[in-house]
Amino acid sequence: MQPVSLDKAYRLMNHGPTVLVSATHGGVANVMAAAWACVLDFTPPKVTVVLDMATATRGLIEASGAFALQLPTRAMVALTTALGTDSARTVPDKLARHGVHLFHAPGSDVPLVPGCVGWLLCQLVPEPHNQQTHDLFIGEVTAAWADERVFSQGRWHFEQAADELRTIHHVAGGHYLVSGESVQG
Amino acid sequence: MQPVSLDKAYRLMNHGPTVLVSATHGGVANVMAAAWACVLDFTPPKVTVVLDMATATRGLIEASGAFALQLPTRAMVALTTALGTDSARTVPDKLARHGVHLFHAPGSDVPLVPGCVGWLLCQLVPEPHNQQTHDLFIGEVTAAWADERVFSQGRWHFEQAADELRTIHHVAGGHYLVSGESVQG
Repeated sequence: MQPVSLDKAYRLMNHGPTVLVSATHGGVANVMAAAWACVLDFTPPKVTVVLDMATATRGLIEASGAFALQLPTRAMVALTTALGTDSARTVPDKLARHGVHLFHAPGSDVPLVPGCVGWLLCQLVPEPHNQQTHDLFIGEVTAAWADERVFSQGRWHFEQAADELRTIHHVAGGHYLVSGESVQG
Repeated sequence: MQPVSLDKAYRLMNHGPTVLVSATHGGVANVMAAAWACVLDFTPPKVTVVLDMATATRGLIEASGAFALQLPTRAMVALTTALGTDSARTVPDKLARHGVHLFHAPGSDVPLVPGCVGWLLCQLVPEPHNQQTHDLFIGEVTAAWADERVFSQGRWHFEQAADELRTIHHVAGGHYLVSGESVQG
């Protein structure tokens, strides 16, 4: 887990991976999956993520003003589907049940998910209209890290590591496309 | 090119492909590339796309209130980079120079790019604050089509066709990751 400079942080998400969204407030932490996450700006780096009203994680983000997006891997497809299907509202021990042991970056209380290949720590940019009308949340990326086995010097190089470390891209119903071949065009 | 029902249209973009954005106004048509496009809602299907102020296509969308997003393929990586690099503002014959011959769906004047594997026709949902502050445009999808060699019954099945038909996911500087293996998680 190596730091990614903020000017390169967008490259972690530019290829459209499905992400895990994590947040904490009042001693409660949670994680959900989201396929609808996207880069919004380069400098400062910003991202968008759609968070349904029914999700417990959304409430934690609204209350704390902070969240993280992180990129699960091919090895984590079943976990990603589970974290996107179960809600802490109906499955209070959701994280324990799925064996997720959160960790933190120094100086931050936003929980992070181990085993991912990219992490983006975000400060919520409050936009009440977008949040209420479109379930659309904007975050400014304040720090980022990547697994250097697959991302370094601003580039993904999945071909140099195990396929289990590739990012995943949800289509529907637990069906994902894994990041594939690298091409220059 | 087969119709995709509106309730399945989000599945064309759920895996985060880079898109080509096309629009027309006052007899002028243009196409640009955009990696920052994302699903926003299921029903009615909506999408977001980030369009820099400097792009000519953005002006056509603001003036006409309509646009299309379409998914270029591995065979189109060089074209996609060219359409994302050249601007009609400085290269007025951009489309002709790159050999793009646009077509239209029946009853629509929004230009479409041949050779893609998915097309989403969108009506602009005007959001002045998002457009001006974040370069963020919202579209409601009014019709969608896909190349049935790789998408049918609401699913991608790239493994059944030539790799040249796979979608592409831009990282930076003309470097793309191609959609890879299909997994169930």
